[in-house]
Amino acid sequence: MKHLIASTLALALSLPAIAQEAEPEPATPTSVVAAAQDSEWIAIAPDDLLVMDLAPDSYGSDRRVVIQLIPPPFSQPWVENIRTLARAHWWDGTSINRVQDNYVTQWGDVTEEKPVPIGIESPSIPYEVRLPRTYSLNEAGIDHETATFTEARIIGSRDSYASLVGTVAGWPVAMSLDAAWPIHCYGYVGVGRSYAPDTGTGAELYTIIGQPQRHMDRNLAVVGRIIDGMEHLSSLPRGSGELGFYSEEEAHLRTPILSVRLASEMEDAPSFEYLSTESQSFAAYVAVRANRDDAFYTVPAGGVDVCNVEVPVRRVDAEPQS
Amino acid sequence: MKHLIASTLALALSLPAIAQEAEPEPATPTSVVAAAQDSEWIAIAPDDLLVMDLAPDSYGSDRRVVIQLIPPPFSQPWVENIRTLARAHWWDGTSINRVQDNYVTQWGDVTEEKPVPIGIESPSIPYEVRLPRTYSLNEAGIDHETATFTEARIIGSRDSYASLVGTVAGWPVAMSLDAAWPIHCYGYVGVGRSYAPDTGTGAELYTIIGQPQRHMDRNLAVVGRIIDGMEHLSSLPRGSGELGFYSEEEAHLRTPILSVRLASEMEDAPSFEYLSTESQSFAAYVAVRANRDDAFYTVPAGGVDVCNVEVPVRRVDAEPQS
Repeated sequence: MKHLIASTLALALSLPAIAQEAEPEPATPTSVVAAAQDSEWIAIAPDDLLVMDLAPDSYGSDRRVVIQLIPPPFSQPWVENIRTLARAHWWDGTSINRVQDNYVTQWGDVTEEKPVPIGIESPSIPYEVRLPRTYSLNEAGIDHETATFTEARIIGSRDSYASLVGTVAGWPVAMSLDAAWPIHCYGYVGVGRSYAPDTGTGAELYTIIGQPQRHMDRNLAVVGRIIDGMEHLSSLPRGSGELGFYSEEEAHLRTPILSVRLASEMEDAPSFEYLSTESQSFAAYVAVRANRDDAFYTVPAGGVDVCNVEVPVRRVDAEPQS
Repeated sequence: MKHLIASTLALALSLPAIAQEAEPEPATPTSVVAAAQDSEWIAIAPDDLLVMDLAPDSYGSDRRVVIQLIPPPFSQPWVENIRTLARAHWWDGTSINRVQDNYVTQWGDVTEEKPVPIGIESPSIPYEVRLPRTYSLNEAGIDHETATFTEARIIGSRDSYASLVGTVAGWPVAMSLDAAWPIHCYGYVGVGRSYAPDTGTGAELYTIIGQPQRHMDRNLAVVGRIIDGMEHLSSLPRGSGELGFYSEEEAHLRTPILSVRLASEMEDAPSFEYLSTESQSFAAYVAVRANRDDAFYTVPAGGVDVCNVEVPVRRVDAEPQS
């Protein structure tokens, strides 16, 4: 009603025509993404999509989780292991074994004795990537603003864990002046491991189900993110054993994993796109995330945590997920 | 085995005595808290504890959630409203009506028509508090370190949402040079409201069940935090209606609230303490959170997000919760 009243008053007082126009609705993250051009969306390759089907829930409803694997230059040896494990149907018949509140949900072989395919090894490479010259950064105008470099977009320099945070090729990253590494935001998927120097193979995976666990950055391999069905991992009953593992008395709480497949090997695979992090709409999205100022929010923050800039993803195949 | 092998080698080579001693175990957040003195823990007043009993879960197990209310100088009109509502047993028979993944779980009267007790109003005060002179801050040595001021401890200045973040009287806060405000970390409880200038009464409450939603800071009133039973709110099925509200078809998913009581009004109330944020042990805890360097972590972050410095809380009454 507010806008209508203002417009009526303007007419009555014969104010200039511009005052008679309804004010545009303030931009919100949702409205900015809805207004993005089709050309700003990028298809996710079927080889980068991992489809995990869990046993139906207690109401008999299907539970499907879709994971997008991280692209080069990050974590590629683990990502390739994961593709090999999926092609071997290695996860079929395994289970979700750990749910620790405000920390992680973790899945894999509960016996820890199931052999992995030949060639699957724990990679011996660092978790960070040296930045090639095309990523070269400078400090101009990066505070609370976005600036486009060749491939890296800076979101901010006020981060507790790194000099700079931003995006590279659709993924949130932390950066120093000569390196970048993927980070542990909500719904991001990492590789479980034993004590260093073990780095894990990728057979044991976890996802963050609470606040970002950024102290894990550069200590464990980030290999992907949940882009659909996250609620099937975040709403599971928490385990009462050490570190949130289900105890033997809670063995019935372990959710069976029916299958894990690459979309490239499925006949009825779902399809997804993500909003290019180099697009104008993504820049606008970051800005509005950092400056909520609409009908509900009255004090814009002036900044945003890199994990709160969730990269928009949309499903594009015609058939709804069962 | 590593330490044992090192010790044996030292003996064989006749190194100085100090080399023969086993290295102390590296400090972890858990070990630092376990080593805190009893004098560093502060009892939570029974008037600051809100005990919410939900209907039993599908296995028949009790579900109890304990909320610690925020102390002065923050949000006191809402906190006093909440005490009044609890004494009136206002929440008994209400329900959890909204669970939005990576956002909030929200509870209250689903009809939005239940009258509140006389005198309960939506306060007209700002969400931030002007800092009295005793909180005066300076910029010396605050980056990645803790420094004790009269009542405020600085955790960092590399925060996306505020100039400074730290703790005041046991609570994480954001600060400018002359104001402080409580923040929306995981498990923190805020007051639902309609569009501004409404600020809510406190009858409708929510808690953060995913990443911190810091853009809500100074836009909604933070009134408490879940200190026990958080899993009963975070693991609920997500609602499929708008904003994660349960749709009418999902009405059976609304968890009934049996009762909400102040501990000061209960005969068998649980008792809790929190680790003083002005204590030496808390300072050590912040430092080790920012610099994980133990058997598992090999790359210390050198900083920590204020929300990842969860203030330690422990239960101290003899009887375990049913």
